[in-house]
Amino acid sequence: MGRWQSGGSERLRDAALGLFLTQGYDGTTVAEIAAAAGLTERTFFRHFADKREVLFVDQREFERAFLAGLPDGGGDDDPMTMIAGVLAGAATLFPEERRPWSRARQSVIAANEALQERELLKLSSLAVSLTRALTARGVDAASAALAGETGVTVFRTSFALWVAEGERRTFREIQNAVLERLQALLA
Amino acid sequence: MGRWQSGGSERLRDAALGLFLTQGYDGTTVAEIAAAAGLTERTFFRHFADKREVLFVDQREFERAFLAGLPDGGGDDDPMTMIAGVLAGAATLFPEERRPWSRARQSVIAANEALQERELLKLSSLAVSLTRALTARGVDAASAALAGETGVTVFRTSFALWVAEGERRTFREIQNAVLERLQALLA
Repeated sequence: MGRWQSGGSERLRDAALGLFLTQGYDGTTVAEIAAAAGLTERTFFRHFADKREVLFVDQREFERAFLAGLPDGGGDDDPMTMIAGVLAGAATLFPEERRPWSRARQSVIAANEALQERELLKLSSLAVSLTRALTARGVDAASAALAGETGVTVFRTSFALWVAEGERRTFREIQNAVLERLQALLA
Repeated sequence: MGRWQSGGSERLRDAALGLFLTQGYDGTTVAEIAAAAGLTERTFFRHFADKREVLFVDQREFERAFLAGLPDGGGDDDPMTMIAGVLAGAATLFPEERRPWSRARQSVIAANEALQERELLKLSSLAVSLTRALTARGVDAASAALAGETGVTVFRTSFALWVAEGERRTFREIQNAVLERLQALLA
Protein backbone atom coordinates (compact mmCIF):
# COMPACT_ATOMS: atom_id res chain seq x y z
CA MET A 1 0.00 0.00 0.00
CA GLY A 2 2.47 2.59 1.19
CA ARG A 3 1.86 5.80 -0.65
CA TRP A 4 -1.78 5.11 -1.50
CA GLN A 5 -4.86 5.88 0.49
CA SER A 6 -4.78 3.60 3.49
CA GLY A 7 -7.46 0.92 3.55
CA GLY A 8 -8.24 1.22 -0.17
CA SER A 9 -6.76 -2.14 -1.04
CA GLU A 10 -8.64 -3.86 1.81
CA ARG A 11 -11.93 -2.33 0.69
CA LEU A 12 -11.26 -3.48 -2.85
CA ARG A 13 -10.35 -6.99 -1.68
CA ASP A 14 -13.52 -7.31 0.38
CA ALA A 15 -15.73 -5.91 -2.38
CA ALA A 16 -14.16 -8.20 -4.97
CA LEU A 17 -14.50 -11.32 -2.85
CA GLY A 18 -18.16 -10.54 -2.18
CA LEU A 19 -18.84 -10.15 -5.90
CA PHE A 20 -16.85 -13.25 -6.85
CA LEU A 21 -18.92 -15.28 -4.38
CA THR A 22 -22.28 -13.98 -5.53
CA GLN A 23 -21.83 -13.60 -9.29
CA GLY A 24 -18.75 -15.67 -10.02
CA TYR A 25 -15.14 -14.68 -10.71
CA ASP A 26 -15.47 -14.61 -14.50
CA GLY A 27 -18.74 -12.69 -14.26
CA THR A 28 -17.23 -9.83 -12.26
CA THR A 29 -15.52 -6.80 -13.82
CA VAL A 30 -12.98 -4.42 -12.33
CA ALA A 31 -15.51 -1.60 -12.82
CA GLU A 32 -18.00 -3.46 -10.63
CA ILE A 33 -15.40 -4.12 -7.95
CA ALA A 34 -14.35 -0.48 -7.86
CA ALA A 35 -17.98 0.69 -7.73
CA ALA A 36 -18.80 -1.74 -4.91
CA ALA A 37 -15.85 -0.37 -2.93
CA GLY A 38 -16.86 3.21 -3.67
CA LEU A 39 -13.65 3.82 -5.59
CA THR A 40 -12.67 4.45 -9.20
CA GLU A 41 -11.22 1.93 -11.65
CA ARG A 42 -8.13 4.08 -11.74
CA THR A 43 -7.71 3.61 -8.01
CA PHE A 44 -8.19 -0.13 -8.46
CA PHE A 45 -5.27 -0.25 -10.89
CA ARG A 46 -3.10 1.71 -8.47
CA HIS A 47 -3.44 -1.21 -6.05
CA PHE A 48 -3.64 -4.25 -8.33
CA ALA A 49 -2.29 -5.19 -11.75
CA ASP A 50 -5.52 -7.01 -12.60
CA LYS A 51 -8.67 -8.60 -11.19
CA ARG A 52 -6.89 -11.78 -10.26
CA GLU A 53 -4.41 -10.06 -7.99
CA VAL A 54 -7.01 -9.00 -5.43
CA LEU A 55 -6.99 -12.65 -4.33
CA PHE A 56 -3.23 -12.76 -3.84
CA VAL A 57 -1.10 -10.87 -1.39
CA ASP A 58 2.17 -9.47 -2.61
CA GLN A 59 4.54 -12.40 -3.13
CA ARG A 60 7.38 -10.73 -1.26
CA GLU A 61 5.17 -10.03 1.76
CA PHE A 62 3.89 -13.60 1.64
CA GLU A 63 7.39 -15.05 1.55
CA ARG A 64 8.69 -12.62 4.15
CA ALA A 65 6.37 -14.15 6.78
CA PHE A 66 7.82 -17.60 6.12
CA LEU A 67 11.42 -16.43 6.06
CA ALA A 68 10.95 -14.43 9.26
CA GLY A 69 10.67 -17.76 11.09
CA LEU A 70 14.11 -18.92 9.96
CA PRO A 71 16.91 -18.89 12.53
CA ASP A 72 19.47 -16.16 11.85
CA GLY A 73 22.05 -18.67 10.71
CA GLY A 74 25.46 -19.23 12.13
CA GLY A 75 23.99 -21.94 14.35
CA ASP A 76 24.00 -25.66 13.66
CA ASP A 77 20.29 -26.07 13.07
CA ASP A 78 19.37 -28.99 10.84
CA PRO A 79 17.16 -28.33 7.78
CA MET A 80 13.96 -29.61 9.37
CA THR A 81 14.42 -27.43 12.44
CA MET A 82 14.71 -24.53 10.01
CA ILE A 83 11.53 -25.64 8.24
CA ALA A 84 9.69 -25.88 11.55
CA GLY A 85 10.69 -22.24 12.12
CA VAL A 86 9.45 -21.32 8.66
CA LEU A 87 6.10 -22.98 9.36
CA ALA A 88 5.78 -21.07 12.62
CA GLY A 89 6.40 -17.88 10.65
CA ALA A 90 3.75 -18.87 8.11
CA ALA A 91 1.18 -19.36 10.87
CA THR A 92 1.38 -15.64 11.68
CA LEU A 93 -0.29 -14.98 8.30
CA PHE A 94 -3.38 -16.92 9.34
CA PRO A 95 -4.83 -15.71 12.62
CA GLU A 96 -8.35 -16.80 13.53
CA GLU A 97 -9.93 -13.55 12.30
CA ARG A 98 -8.65 -14.24 8.81
CA ARG A 99 -10.24 -17.66 8.52
CA PRO A 100 -13.64 -16.56 7.07
CA TRP A 101 -11.92 -14.50 4.37
CA SER A 102 -9.50 -17.33 3.54
CA ARG A 103 -12.35 -19.83 3.42
CA ALA A 104 -14.33 -17.65 1.00
CA ARG A 105 -11.24 -17.01 -1.12
CA GLN A 106 -10.55 -20.75 -1.27
CA SER A 107 -14.04 -21.47 -2.61
CA VAL A 108 -13.52 -18.90 -5.38
CA ILE A 109 -10.15 -20.37 -6.31
CA ALA A 110 -11.44 -23.96 -6.23
CA ALA A 111 -13.98 -23.00 -8.91
CA ASN A 112 -11.49 -21.51 -11.37
CA GLU A 113 -8.62 -23.28 -13.09
CA ALA A 114 -6.64 -20.13 -13.91
CA LEU A 115 -6.73 -19.10 -10.25
CA GLN A 116 -5.56 -22.55 -9.22
CA GLU A 117 -2.61 -22.17 -11.57
CA ARG A 118 -1.81 -18.78 -10.08
CA GLU A 119 -1.89 -20.31 -6.58
CA LEU A 120 0.35 -23.13 -7.72
CA LEU A 121 2.91 -20.67 -9.08
CA LYS A 122 2.83 -18.76 -5.81
CA LEU A 123 3.65 -21.91 -3.85
CA SER A 124 6.28 -23.03 -6.33
CA SER A 125 7.98 -19.67 -6.04
CA LEU A 126 7.81 -20.01 -2.26
CA ALA A 127 9.52 -23.42 -2.43
CA VAL A 128 12.31 -21.90 -4.52
CA SER A 129 12.77 -19.09 -1.99
CA LEU A 130 12.84 -21.49 0.96
CA THR A 131 15.36 -23.68 -0.84
CA ARG A 132 17.56 -20.63 -1.53
CA ALA A 133 17.32 -19.48 2.08
CA LEU A 134 18.39 -22.90 3.36
CA THR A 135 21.25 -23.07 0.87
CA ALA A 136 22.38 -19.63 2.03
CA ARG A 137 22.50 -21.04 5.57
CA GLY A 138 24.87 -23.81 4.54
CA VAL A 139 22.46 -26.65 3.79
CA ASP A 140 23.52 -28.77 0.80
CA ALA A 141 21.49 -28.29 -2.39
CA ALA A 142 19.59 -31.60 -2.40
CA SER A 143 18.62 -31.39 1.29
CA ALA A 144 17.61 -27.75 0.90
CA ALA A 145 15.36 -28.59 -2.05
CA LEU A 146 13.77 -31.51 -0.22
CA ALA A 147 13.23 -29.51 2.94
CA GLY A 148 11.90 -26.48 1.03
CA GLU A 149 9.43 -28.57 -0.99
CA THR A 150 8.41 -30.50 2.09
CA GLY A 151 7.78 -27.29 4.01
CA VAL A 152 5.45 -26.14 1.23
CA THR A 153 3.70 -29.53 1.20
CA VAL A 154 3.05 -29.27 4.95
CA PHE A 155 1.90 -25.68 4.54
CA ARG A 156 -0.56 -26.33 1.69
CA THR A 157 -1.97 -29.47 3.32
CA SER A 158 -2.45 -27.52 6.55
CA PHE A 159 -4.06 -24.62 4.74
CA ALA A 160 -6.60 -26.95 3.07
CA LEU A 161 -7.51 -28.37 6.48
CA TRP A 162 -7.67 -24.93 8.15
CA VAL A 163 -10.25 -23.59 5.68
CA ALA A 164 -12.36 -26.77 5.71
CA GLU A 165 -15.91 -26.26 7.01
CA GLY A 166 -16.19 -26.95 10.70
CA GLU A 167 -12.43 -26.96 11.38
CA ARG A 168 -11.67 -25.27 14.72
CA ARG A 169 -7.98 -25.95 15.35
CA THR A 170 -5.56 -23.05 14.90
CA PHE A 171 -3.28 -22.92 11.87
CA ARG A 172 -0.33 -23.67 14.13
CA GLU A 173 -1.99 -26.70 15.69
CA ILE A 174 -2.87 -28.09 12.28
CA GLN A 175 0.65 -27.57 10.94
CA ASN A 176 2.14 -29.39 13.90
CA ALA A 177 -0.26 -32.30 13.42
CA VAL A 178 0.45 -32.45 9.67
CA LEU A 179 4.21 -32.40 10.19
CA GLU A 180 3.90 -35.22 12.73
CA ARG A 181 1.75 -37.18 10.31
CA LEU A 182 4.34 -36.80 7.59
CA GLN A 183 7.11 -37.89 9.95
CA ALA A 184 5.08 -40.98 10.86
CA LEU A 185 4.44 -41.77 7.18
CA LEU A 186 8.15 -41.63 6.37
CA ALA A 187 9.40 -43.37 9.51
CA MET B 1 0.37 -42.24 -31.73
CA GLY B 2 -1.94 -45.09 -32.60
CA ARG B 3 -3.56 -44.38 -35.92
CA TRP B 4 -0.90 -42.05 -37.29
CA GLN B 5 2.24 -42.89 -39.18
CA SER B 6 4.54 -44.69 -36.75
CA GLY B 7 7.65 -42.78 -35.74
CA GLY B 8 6.33 -39.41 -36.91
CA SER B 9 5.99 -38.01 -33.42
CA GLU B 10 9.48 -39.17 -32.44
CA ARG B 11 10.98 -37.55 -35.54
CA LEU B 12 9.14 -34.34 -34.74
CA ARG B 13 10.29 -34.42 -31.11
CA ASP B 14 13.92 -34.92 -32.08
CA ALA B 15 13.79 -32.24 -34.77
CA ALA B 16 12.12 -29.78 -32.40
CA LEU B 17 14.58 -30.34 -29.58
CA GLY B 18 17.51 -29.86 -31.96
CA LEU B 19 16.08 -26.55 -33.18
CA PHE B 20 15.19 -25.36 -29.66
CA LEU B 21 18.79 -26.00 -28.58
CA THR B 22 20.39 -24.24 -31.52
CA GLN B 23 18.04 -21.31 -32.18
CA GLY B 24 16.00 -21.10 -28.98
CA TYR B 25 12.46 -22.18 -28.16
CA ASP B 26 10.85 -18.83 -28.95
CA GLY B 27 12.85 -18.51 -32.15
CA THR B 28 11.59 -21.80 -33.58
CA THR B 29 8.36 -22.16 -35.58
CA VAL B 30 6.20 -25.22 -36.16
CA ALA B 31 6.92 -24.89 -39.88
CA GLU B 32 10.65 -25.18 -39.20
CA ILE B 33 10.15 -28.21 -36.96
CA ALA B 34 8.01 -29.97 -39.56
CA ALA B 35 10.53 -29.17 -42.32
CA ALA B 36 13.46 -30.42 -40.23
CA ALA B 37 11.58 -33.69 -39.66
CA GLY B 38 10.72 -33.97 -43.37
CA LEU B 39 7.00 -33.72 -42.57
CA THR B 40 4.23 -31.20 -43.17
CA GLU B 41 2.80 -28.74 -40.66
CA ARG B 42 -0.48 -30.57 -40.98
CA THR B 43 1.20 -33.75 -39.83
CA PHE B 44 2.72 -31.86 -36.92
CA PHE B 45 -0.72 -30.80 -35.74
CA ARG B 46 -1.97 -34.37 -35.98
CA HIS B 47 0.55 -35.28 -33.31
CA PHE B 48 0.72 -32.16 -31.14
CA ALA B 49 -1.68 -29.39 -30.17
CA ASP B 50 1.12 -26.81 -30.31
CA LYS B 51 4.88 -26.31 -30.28
CA ARG B 52 5.11 -26.64 -26.53
CA GLU B 53 3.63 -30.11 -26.45
CA VAL B 54 6.54 -31.73 -28.28
CA LEU B 55 8.42 -31.39 -24.99
CA PHE B 56 5.72 -33.15 -22.97
CA VAL B 57 4.54 -36.73 -23.20
CA ASP B 58 0.85 -37.39 -22.96
CA GLN B 59 -0.20 -36.75 -19.35
CA ARG B 60 -2.13 -40.03 -19.13
CA GLU B 61 0.84 -42.03 -20.38
CA PHE B 62 3.10 -40.20 -17.95
CA GLU B 63 0.83 -40.89 -14.99
CA ARG B 64 0.20 -44.48 -16.08
CA ALA B 65 3.87 -45.32 -15.51
CA PHE B 66 3.66 -44.07 -11.93
CA LEU B 67 0.36 -45.75 -11.17
CA ALA B 68 1.58 -49.05 -12.66
CA GLY B 69 3.91 -49.33 -9.67
CA LEU B 70 1.05 -49.22 -7.15
CA PRO B 71 0.11 -52.44 -5.43
CA ASP B 72 -3.26 -53.79 -6.63
CA GLY B 73 -4.93 -52.91 -3.38
CA GLY B 74 -6.69 -55.23 -1.05
CA GLY B 75 -3.43 -55.56 0.89
CA ASP B 76 -2.47 -53.65 4.00
CA ASP B 77 0.32 -51.60 2.48
CA ASP B 78 1.02 -48.31 4.19
CA PRO B 79 1.02 -45.10 2.09
CA MET B 80 4.81 -44.82 1.87
CA THR B 81 5.14 -48.43 0.67
CA MET B 82 2.65 -47.48 -2.03
CA ILE B 83 4.70 -44.39 -2.90
CA ALA B 84 7.87 -46.47 -3.10
CA GLY B 85 6.03 -48.62 -5.65
CA VAL B 86 4.99 -45.52 -7.57
CA LEU B 87 8.59 -44.28 -7.68
CA ALA B 88 9.73 -47.66 -9.00
CA GLY B 89 7.10 -47.32 -11.72
CA ALA B 90 8.33 -43.81 -12.55
CA ALA B 91 11.88 -45.06 -12.97
CA THR B 92 10.76 -47.16 -15.96
CA LEU B 93 10.19 -43.87 -17.83
CA PHE B 94 13.84 -42.92 -17.54
CA PRO B 95 16.17 -45.64 -18.81
CA GLU B 96 19.79 -44.74 -19.47
CA GLU B 97 19.25 -44.27 -23.22
CA ARG B 98 16.77 -41.50 -22.52
CA ARG B 99 19.14 -39.43 -20.38
CA PRO B 100 20.72 -37.33 -23.20
CA TRP B 101 17.27 -36.37 -24.52
CA SER B 102 15.98 -35.55 -21.03
CA ARG B 103 19.08 -33.51 -20.30
CA ALA B 104 18.66 -31.47 -23.50
CA ARG B 105 14.95 -31.02 -22.85
CA GLN B 106 15.71 -29.82 -19.33
CA SER B 107 18.07 -27.14 -20.61
CA VAL B 108 15.35 -25.86 -22.97
CA ILE B 109 12.78 -25.78 -20.17
CA ALA B 110 15.15 -24.09 -17.73
CA ALA B 111 15.51 -21.18 -20.19
CA ASN B 112 11.77 -20.52 -20.60
CA GLU B 113 9.31 -19.48 -17.91
CA ALA B 114 6.17 -20.63 -19.77
CA LEU B 115 7.67 -24.10 -20.17
CA GLN B 116 8.53 -24.20 -16.47
CA GLU B 117 4.90 -23.41 -15.69
CA ARG B 118 3.74 -26.19 -18.00
CA GLU B 119 6.09 -28.61 -16.22
CA LEU B 120 4.79 -27.46 -12.86
CA LEU B 121 1.19 -28.10 -13.91
CA LYS B 122 2.18 -31.55 -15.12
CA LEU B 123 3.64 -32.43 -11.73
CA SER B 124 0.75 -30.88 -9.84
CA SER B 125 -1.69 -32.94 -11.85
CA LEU B 126 0.43 -36.01 -11.09
CA ALA B 127 0.25 -35.27 -7.35
CA VAL B 128 -3.54 -35.06 -7.58
CA SER B 129 -3.69 -38.40 -9.42
CA LEU B 130 -1.42 -40.10 -6.89
CA THR B 131 -3.50 -38.70 -4.03
CA ARG B 132 -6.68 -40.01 -5.66
CA ALA B 133 -5.16 -43.43 -6.26
CA LEU B 134 -4.12 -43.70 -2.61
CA THR B 135 -7.53 -42.56 -1.42
CA ALA B 136 -9.13 -45.20 -3.65
CA ARG B 137 -6.97 -47.78 -1.87
CA GLY B 138 -8.33 -46.77 1.51
CA VAL B 139 -5.72 -44.22 2.65
CA ASP B 140 -7.28 -41.28 4.56
CA ALA B 141 -7.40 -37.97 2.67
CA ALA B 142 -4.69 -36.09 4.59
CA SER B 143 -2.19 -38.97 4.50
CA ALA B 144 -2.93 -39.57 0.83
CA ALA B 145 -2.29 -35.90 0.00
CA LEU B 146 0.94 -35.84 2.01
CA ALA B 147 2.17 -39.09 0.47
CA GLY B 148 1.18 -38.02 -3.06
CA GLU B 149 2.92 -34.64 -2.77
CA THR B 150 5.95 -36.24 -1.16
CA GLY B 151 6.18 -38.79 -3.94
CA VAL B 152 6.27 -35.95 -6.47
CA THR B 153 8.88 -34.09 -4.42
CA VAL B 154 11.14 -37.15 -4.41
CA PHE B 155 10.52 -37.65 -8.12
CA ARG B 156 11.30 -34.07 -9.17
CA THR B 157 14.36 -33.83 -6.94
CA SER B 158 15.62 -37.11 -8.38
CA PHE B 159 14.95 -35.99 -11.93
CA ALA B 160 16.98 -32.80 -11.40
CA LEU B 161 19.90 -34.88 -10.14
CA TRP B 162 19.58 -37.47 -12.91
CA VAL B 163 19.92 -34.88 -15.70
CA ALA B 164 22.78 -32.99 -14.00
CA GLU B 165 26.02 -32.99 -15.98
CA GLY B 166 28.33 -35.82 -14.97
CA GLU B 167 25.70 -37.77 -13.03
CA ARG B 168 26.10 -41.52 -13.63
CA ARG B 169 23.74 -43.19 -11.15
CA THR B 170 20.55 -44.72 -12.54
CA PHE B 171 17.22 -43.01 -11.96
CA ARG B 172 16.26 -45.78 -9.54
CA GLU B 173 19.47 -45.43 -7.53
CA ILE B 174 18.99 -41.68 -7.27
CA GLN B 175 15.35 -42.02 -6.18
CA ASN B 176 16.30 -44.47 -3.44
CA ALA B 177 19.02 -42.13 -2.19
CA VAL B 178 16.68 -39.11 -2.25
CA LEU B 179 13.94 -40.96 -0.39
CA GLU B 180 16.46 -42.04 2.25
CA ARG B 181 17.70 -38.47 2.52
CA LEU B 182 14.18 -37.21 3.08
CA GLN B 183 13.54 -39.86 5.71
CA ALA B 184 16.71 -38.82 7.51
CA LEU B 185 15.72 -35.13 7.33
CA LEU B 186 12.35 -35.86 8.92
CA ALA B 187 13.56 -38.41 11.49
